[in-house]
Amino acid sequence: MKAVWKPGTMIYPLPAVMVSCGAEPDYYNIITVSWTGTICTDPAMCYISLRPCRHSYSIIKETGEYVINLTTGRLARAADWCGVKSGASCNKFRETGLTPVPATKVKAPLIMESPVNIECMVKDIIELGSHHMFISEVVAVNADELLMDKRSGLFRLNDAMPLCYSHGAYYEIGKLAGSFGFSVKKKKGK
Amino acid sequence: MKAVWKPGTMIYPLPAVMVSCGAEPDYYNIITVSWTGTICTDPAMCYISLRPCRHSYSIIKETGEYVINLTTGRLARAADWCGVKSGASCNKFRETGLTPVPATKVKAPLIMESPVNIECMVKDIIELGSHHMFISEVVAVNADELLMDKRSGLFRLNDAMPLCYSHGAYYEIGKLAGSFGFSVKKKKGK
Repeated sequence: MKAVWKPGTMIYPLPAVMVSCGAEPDYYNIITVSWTGTICTDPAMCYISLRPCRHSYSIIKETGEYVINLTTGRLARAADWCGVKSGASCNKFRETGLTPVPATKVKAPLIMESPVNIECMVKDIIELGSHHMFISEVVAVNADELLMDKRSGLFRLNDAMPLCYSHGAYYEIGKLAGSFGFSVKKKKGK
Repeated sequence: MKAVWKPGTMIYPLPAVMVSCGAEPDYYNIITVSWTGTICTDPAMCYISLRPCRHSYSIIKETGEYVINLTTGRLARAADWCGVKSGASCNKFRETGLTPVPATKVKAPLIMESPVNIECMVKDIIELGSHHMFISEVVAVNADELLMDKRSGLFRLNDAMPLCYSHGAYYEIGKLAGSFGFSVKKKKGK
């Protein structure tokens, strides 16, 4: 019933995010990663893991800052391209047409077209093997005003159909399976 | 255009996985987490972050082992329930009807109903704040034989509609936005 495989990276679906970096426009770069996630709620902390050979690795190691930009179906092509190409040989903002805008707490730019931009400061780098993990603190979050529900005040991220990466392909989120806590919610009238 | 918020945990969509732990049946437990991901490709390494107050925290700290079980739409209710309830006051395998089966390299059980079970050994625990991060090595992967494509030999994880967690709700994966590398793939005949 179960096939047993040797160790591999099989946790999916994962976020497909574009990481922007660089302290000055001439050095701005974008790398797409899925080896990313939240590691602590309070303080809000996250990580990205990068191969040392990547162009963005040196930039982030030197500046100690980066921005995680969430993606959507509309950004899938740009996201894929920024994951495959190297910033050593092209200007990724210019080639993709994505727009760099100033962040609030870090020198790295936000990607305007992204629904959420998470500004991060590196706290530690752990050299694990093929990838080094940048343990980071979230220092600010920028959210698209168009996704704010004016009546409820709630942020409707999932209306933007955020993109994930699952076992070789990008997918928008699909069928709602339930809200957090739905399994213990009492039905009306009970 | 962008609202600026204080630091928060806004990386989404994330995996919604059930983590099984415990070295003996009487102590088996399940906790659902989204603070999980891949941190290194070679060797294959991953993490989970847990609050020290959780029942599974002590079990995993003591045994140094756990299994990450991917979920699907069919498992959404059990996954939500195992995230909300505490194993200190109930037997989660019995209450959910999920089936523990022996793993190959760790004493913690696999959840049979999950399409992929990732056996993990803890290498380090980093105390970050509200959550402590278990840095772990993948020691084996178990995959549902029914998802193996007999003709191609490929594993069709995405046919099982794996579940993610995005900003307060669980979703199956949805519309395919492209396969990895699609942005640079040459069209036929070119």
